[in-house]
Amino acid sequence: KSPLQHGNRMAYMDFPYVSPSHKDLMVDLASTLDTRLSSFLNPCNLPPDVQSYQNDTGTAHAALHLRSGLHSSPIDFMLGSWLHCALPTGGALNITSLSAYLNSSTDAPNFLIELIQSSPTSMVLILDLPPRVDLVLNPDYLKTFYQDTQLDQHRQHLDKLSEVKPYFSSSLYIRAVVSPTAILVRIETERLEEMIETHVGPIAKEVLKTWLDVCAFGERVVGESERDWLRKRDDMSKSKTIEIDLGSNLPRLFGQETANRVLEALKEVF
Amino acid sequence: KSPLQHGNRMAYMDFPYVSPSHKDLMVDLASTLDTRLSSFLNPCNLPPDVQSYQNDTGTAHAALHLRSGLHSSPIDFMLGSWLHCALPTGGALNITSLSAYLNSSTDAPNFLIELIQSSPTSMVLILDLPPRVDLVLNPDYLKTFYQDTQLDQHRQHLDKLSEVKPYFSSSLYIRAVVSPTAILVRIETERLEEMIETHVGPIAKEVLKTWLDVCAFGERVVGESERDWLRKRDDMSKSKTIEIDLGSNLPRLFGQETANRVLEALKEVF
Repeated sequence: KSPLQHGNRMAYMDFPYVSPSHKDLMVDLASTLDTRLSSFLNPCNLPPDVQSYQNDTGTAHAALHLRSGLHSSPIDFMLGSWLHCALPTGGALNITSLSAYLNSSTDAPNFLIELIQSSPTSMVLILDLPPRVDLVLNPDYLKTFYQDTQLDQHRQHLDKLSEVKPYFSSSLYIRAVVSPTAILVRIETERLEEMIETHVGPIAKEVLKTWLDVCAFGERVVGESERDWLRKRDDMSKSKTIEIDLGSNLPRLFGQETANRVLEALKEVF
Repeated sequence: KSPLQHGNRMAYMDFPYVSPSHKDLMVDLASTLDTRLSSFLNPCNLPPDVQSYQNDTGTAHAALHLRSGLHSSPIDFMLGSWLHCALPTGGALNITSLSAYLNSSTDAPNFLIELIQSSPTSMVLILDLPPRVDLVLNPDYLKTFYQDTQLDQHRQHLDKLSEVKPYFSSSLYIRAVVSPTAILVRIETERLEEMIETHVGPIAKEVLKTWLDVCAFGERVVGESERDWLRKRDDMSKSKTIEIDLGSNLPRLFGQETANRVLEALKEVF
């Protein structure tokens, strides 16, 4: 009864393995991005066997959705993905993520959400607008994008719930990439569906709205020398992120051949 | 029986208001810094009424200890301070801190420890080697000073204790200044003395040792253009930190006149 057994290619927007509220949230966020940014984005032109791929034994399955931005737009690209992997214990690991990267015409923050579910009662949520400049040197940037937008209230809201605990990524680089208002939490509860509907969903939609209004559609003036700097920093951040996220996991889960195919396709934008 | 009632000026190293284990730890750290850096440091030449000061009613009392580094040394300055303030509730607020800043001959991290005790059973600990470059752009720096030194093991050790919870500074700037391995925790326990002796003390001494061996005495080659950048970033970080830490608190606790005197003396190095 697994979607894989039908032999269908499941696309990004199908989210076939996650719970209804988890799927609803991801579809809502991806549709909002698609709609608001539609005039800025090229269609996804990943090869079909990168848009959807699986391992030899059919226990791991993943989908990718990548749309690059038009050169005249402030968007570098948006990237959606999900990954499902049956665990030897009988459970499954499910990761869904959505990110949007801006290009060097603006220094405004990017958008990132990732839900990592490794059991029916436990989920890690990463939700952030990662900054694109050194905040220590740029307190005005911190004020504009993080203080004035009151992003920290969302983190504080979750922090008050007994089911929610701070989460520390095992990668120090990932910890360095995120903003001071980043939501990095582990949610442990028998009522995960309700938690997503009542708390995670509304907050994720608010943060995406802030990103669209203030970052993607906020006008920022960036000088030529700052652009060179931004490109250098963005390139480093993207290549390190893909190395950490996928470099070791993809070969382990899908085999080296598939991993190479997927990484090759992503390197065009990363 | 309060030290203030004797009319004595209490110096930094006296730590007259905190518990024995809290005092022992601070004296140990300050002495270690004094000893290891002795050939690098000028004597403290703050005016006596800045080395020790109090408010008109005698309910708030503070001490400062500041030693600047020789120009030929890698040390910018070391700064120690404590602050005691009787609370209307009958309790007291006690803050002790010690920090060491390097100059632009090296880009190695600084050292910082702060213990904030607002009740007999609750203490905030801030312990970190704040980085002096943008870590996103400099993964090698992250590896040298934070991964290879295994600093995160100390944070993980404390994280496993049930009395210890992550602490989020209300200042987003302070959150941005600290490293990915920063220890920012609140400790809630009836046995605070034991917690300092068994866990906080050994870890603080280890982190200071790492800072001395790898940062203060680690040889780093910094080019002239990077030095300009470092100075700019250090200046911003120092002036924002003093603004956040002292700018509003000192006038409130000690009155505007005393606050001005203290801030004026600190601005020579900050």
